[in-house]
Amino acid sequence: MKRAKNVVSVGKISGAVGTYADIDPFVEEYVCKKLDITPSPVSTQTLQRDRHAEFMTTLAVIASSIDKFATEIRHLQRTEVREAEEYFSPKQKGSSIMPHKRNPVTCERMCGLARVIRGNAQAALEDVALWHERDISHSSVERIILPDSTIALDYMLTTFTRVIDRLIVYPEKMMQDLKLTGGLIFSPILLNTLVEKGAVREQAYRWVQRNAMKRWLEGEDFLDNLKKDEDIAAVMTNEEIEECFDVKKMLRHVDTIFARFGL
Amino acid sequence: MKRAKNVVSVGKISGAVGTYADIDPFVEEYVCKKLDITPSPVSTQTLQRDRHAEFMTTLAVIASSIDKFATEIRHLQRTEVREAEEYFSPKQKGSSIMPHKRNPVTCERMCGLARVIRGNAQAALEDVALWHERDISHSSVERIILPDSTIALDYMLTTFTRVIDRLIVYPEKMMQDLKLTGGLIFSPILLNTLVEKGAVREQAYRWVQRNAMKRWLEGEDFLDNLKKDEDIAAVMTNEEIEECFDVKKMLRHVDTIFARFGL
Amino acid sequence: MKRAKNVVSVGKISGAVGTYADIDPFVEEYVCKKLDITPSPVSTQTLQRDRHAEFMTTLAVIASSIDKFATEIRHLQRTEVREAEEYFSPKQKGSSIMPHKRNPVTCERMCGLARVIRGNAQAALEDVALWHERDISHSSVERIILPDSTIALDYMLTTFTRVIDRLIVYPEKMMQDLKLTGGLIFSPILLNTLVEKGAVREQAYRWVQRNAMKRWLEGEDFLDNLKKDEDIAAVMTNEEIEECFDVKKMLRHVDTIFARFGL
Amino acid sequence: MKRAKNVVSVGKISGAVGTYADIDPFVEEYVCKKLDITPSPVSTQTLQRDRHAEFMTTLAVIASSIDKFATEIRHLQRTEVREAEEYFSPKQKGSSIMPHKRNPVTCERMCGLARVIRGNAQAALEDVALWHERDISHSSVERIILPDSTIALDYMLTTFTRVIDRLIVYPEKMMQDLKLTGGLIFSPILLNTLVEKGAVREQAYRWVQRNAMKRWLEGEDFLDNLKKDEDIAAVMTNEEIEECFDVKKMLRHVDTIFARFGL
Repeated sequence: MKRAKNVVSVGKISGAVGTYADIDPFVEEYVCKKLDITPSPVSTQTLQRDRHAEFMTTLAVIASSIDKFATEIRHLQRTEVREAEEYFSPKQKGSSIMPHKRNPVTCERMCGLARVIRGNAQAALEDVALWHERDISHSSVERIILPDSTIALDYMLTTFTRVIDRLIVYPEKMMQDLKLTGGLIFSPILLNTLVEKGAVREQAYRWVQRNAMKRWLEGEDFLDNLKKDEDIAAVMTNEEIEECFDVKKMLRHVDTIFARFGL
Repeated sequence: MKRAKNVVSVGKISGAVGTYADIDPFVEEYVCKKLDITPSPVSTQTLQRDRHAEFMTTLAVIASSIDKFATEIRHLQRTEVREAEEYFSPKQKGSSIMPHKRNPVTCERMCGLARVIRGNAQAALEDVALWHERDISHSSVERIILPDSTIALDYMLTTFTRVIDRLIVYPEKMMQDLKLTGGLIFSPILLNTLVEKGAVREQAYRWVQRNAMKRWLEGEDFLDNLKKDEDIAAVMTNEEIEECFDVKKMLRHVDTIFARFGL
Repeated sequence: MKRAKNVVSVGKISGAVGTYADIDPFVEEYVCKKLDITPSPVSTQTLQRDRHAEFMTTLAVIASSIDKFATEIRHLQRTEVREAEEYFSPKQKGSSIMPHKRNPVTCERMCGLARVIRGNAQAALEDVALWHERDISHSSVERIILPDSTIALDYMLTTFTRVIDRLIVYPEKMMQDLKLTGGLIFSPILLNTLVEKGAVREQAYRWVQRNAMKRWLEGEDFLDNLKKDEDIAAVMTNEEIEECFDVKKMLRHVDTIFARFGL
Repeated sequence: MKRAKNVVSVGKISGAVGTYADIDPFVEEYVCKKLDITPSPVSTQTLQRDRHAEFMTTLAVIASSIDKFATEIRHLQRTEVREAEEYFSPKQKGSSIMPHKRNPVTCERMCGLARVIRGNAQAALEDVALWHERDISHSSVERIILPDSTIALDYMLTTFTRVIDRLIVYPEKMMQDLKLTGGLIFSPILLNTLVEKGAVREQAYRWVQRNAMKRWLEGEDFLDNLKKDEDIAAVMTNEEIEECFDVKKMLRHVDTIFARFGL
């Protein structure tokens, strides 16, 4: 956004066809300086619309990122998942026919508005190829897409910040869902440890997979079966296998990741 | 438009998830009949959005056709061409710094609005892939794009009809521009006649081209040179050459074309 | 698709600028008849590109519908949901680091290709506003988007048909997920029955909601609480309440819906 | 382009879900340094697609700028304008039926390819909202749009550079077209000078316009009429009026503009 803001923060006072025929370039410099923007290095009757297009596509990228975060919350709020929910005020009315149902309506609205802004960005890209120094066809477009998109994105940023601030998170359900696979999520660590202990990767993959599938398809106990697997037992002790199932090991770099953002 | 209108003229009253759990299908049929629309053969909580997308892309195709016609008029109104002009009321003010200048501002506006509607059609296409029976993400999109696009296209159709009704046409300038090429526009007829008279097409093409280029690049007289060309003279008489330069021959099927539209 | 095919099944042999200057309209009629297409009522050097745009946006609508169906399967295949899964051949290798994991890769590919076709439809819409009778700018576009989009959609239709044919469905998990809400899904029927028995809708809604929330937030037994609710008890007997919890009642119109498709 | 290149020049080696569960962040830093790219501050299974979208929309902005330049040349090459033409090799064949006709086919191709890249940018924006850490739907999109768009833009840049290098420019025709309006293009300077000499702008505008329209609509001599206009004569001498018609005055800032680019 900062980069895009920079790109559009230019001005021009260069006359009817950009030749400064009836105005000195000094006026342009002076006025732009007062407005804290840069004079456009070259202009015609108008500023070139590549700048506006870059601004608009940047809005579309930002809106699409909010779309992504909002999509994530919509997934988490599914009845079957319910690991997180948008805040729902006691005064708010639920679904008109499902009295308990609280849909992630705000997140869904975020996704929708991102589509509108993406469509507007497309119109902005079409605006670039104006004719000569005098085409005014971009004007009707910009009167619609510039206010609509900036207002929509401002609304999205404000609203989605509030969604995140008040998001209801269910850590117990998260832990419960992590356990859903009976430990299968630890397979990559097990696989890596087997390779570290000297197993060939292709073989180790097959050993882990045959036990994983018994869990996945038949619901058998993954850890028990691993311990009973002779190929695995030849490389790892039961203690070493169990160590691979420790969630703390998975999270040991969390602080490093947060530190990258100065948190 | 008629096809698209048909596609969206459906209704649904099939309950919260489209199962008619708490309402009889008869109610849907009865109400739709009263409204002169068709019951949707299958629905969920909502009507499927492929219908709305087809409607919106149809609006975009129509807007793009107006874009094409308006682009044509913008070309014809160039200072160097000036074969036609948008009507300009005596009360209307011209360009703010070019007092004589009358830009095709309405046609330019048509082109701009077509871009907006094309962008909205893109958002409508993204609306199709809703989740399950309950996703409301299309709602924020449709509240914007449906009124904006239908109003914009209605405005375009009304406004552009008026542009055409009051278009100022300059037939003399048209005839003058046709003559700009010194008869080169009759080359295809000449070429065809040469072939009819027995010349090999590749050869005839070269004969015509060498004389055409002398006109195009050096400004020499095309008809004169053709008559002096020995290869051509071996196949066609001077009278036959001259006959090819008759504009009436080119227009002989005009009535047939108009008749196809019942005009 | 049939409608769109009809729209593009036209031909033109009307000469260099659509005037039939050097060819009789009869030739056009004759050739088009042989090819089983319709002569274009009016043409220039080329056929007008609104036809191609309508064809391409139709492909985009169809691709977006497949996008929707594929999105549904991606939801159903989530680890937490697992109500359906794409067929996974025993020879197929799973995720490279999660040996048990079978991602809905084909459905994800469908969603991706739909985006490509939607983008191509946008280019087709921009192609409509060609200049005069001679602009060839659409040619480079159509050489890319027409084969790419028709091939991609053909692949999508073929591939997605196979996905559906071999879809692995888990009805027990479906039933289990239906029960997840402890009967809350029957609230609309309960609500309607209360109104039928004479309760005011706004009041009935509040009675149902207060019991629904106790289930949803505290996990209490919904049916038990309903029977204990004095307001509800004043209107419905325990038997009548229990009748609302019968899934068969919800499905009683299934045959009617299928019959609409002749199934 | 440089900014966009920077945005996509990041790498990630952070494990299956971006937690570095089975790999130390040091490896990521070490490898990225060797490749002269930056480690992504945070990643999941994949890099976030906002980066790819920003890259692709930047390609679309650049392609749209080439679209604008190419559109300008297409205008200049019109038969009625012919102020510039694409180079046409003597070996090149002209239009198949108009032997003299040399269409701006390369510029038209540039405009077409810009549409394709704009469509691809739209698909890239849709790619941003991936699901969780595991969605592979962007893959099929990027396999098409990334090579297609980078190759197309590379082709456009190379080809259009050659178009400009070999562009045939007709300065005499340019000067002739400037004179087409009989001096009307000097109206803004005249208008400004009148105001400088003390006339009220609204009045001066009307004085200039009434003479401009006599030229524009009736073809009368603009300069002569101005000199005869009593209102204007009250403010400016004939010499002062004539000075406004000097093209050199219009071009006096040309060197300043070029100097801004270091030329």
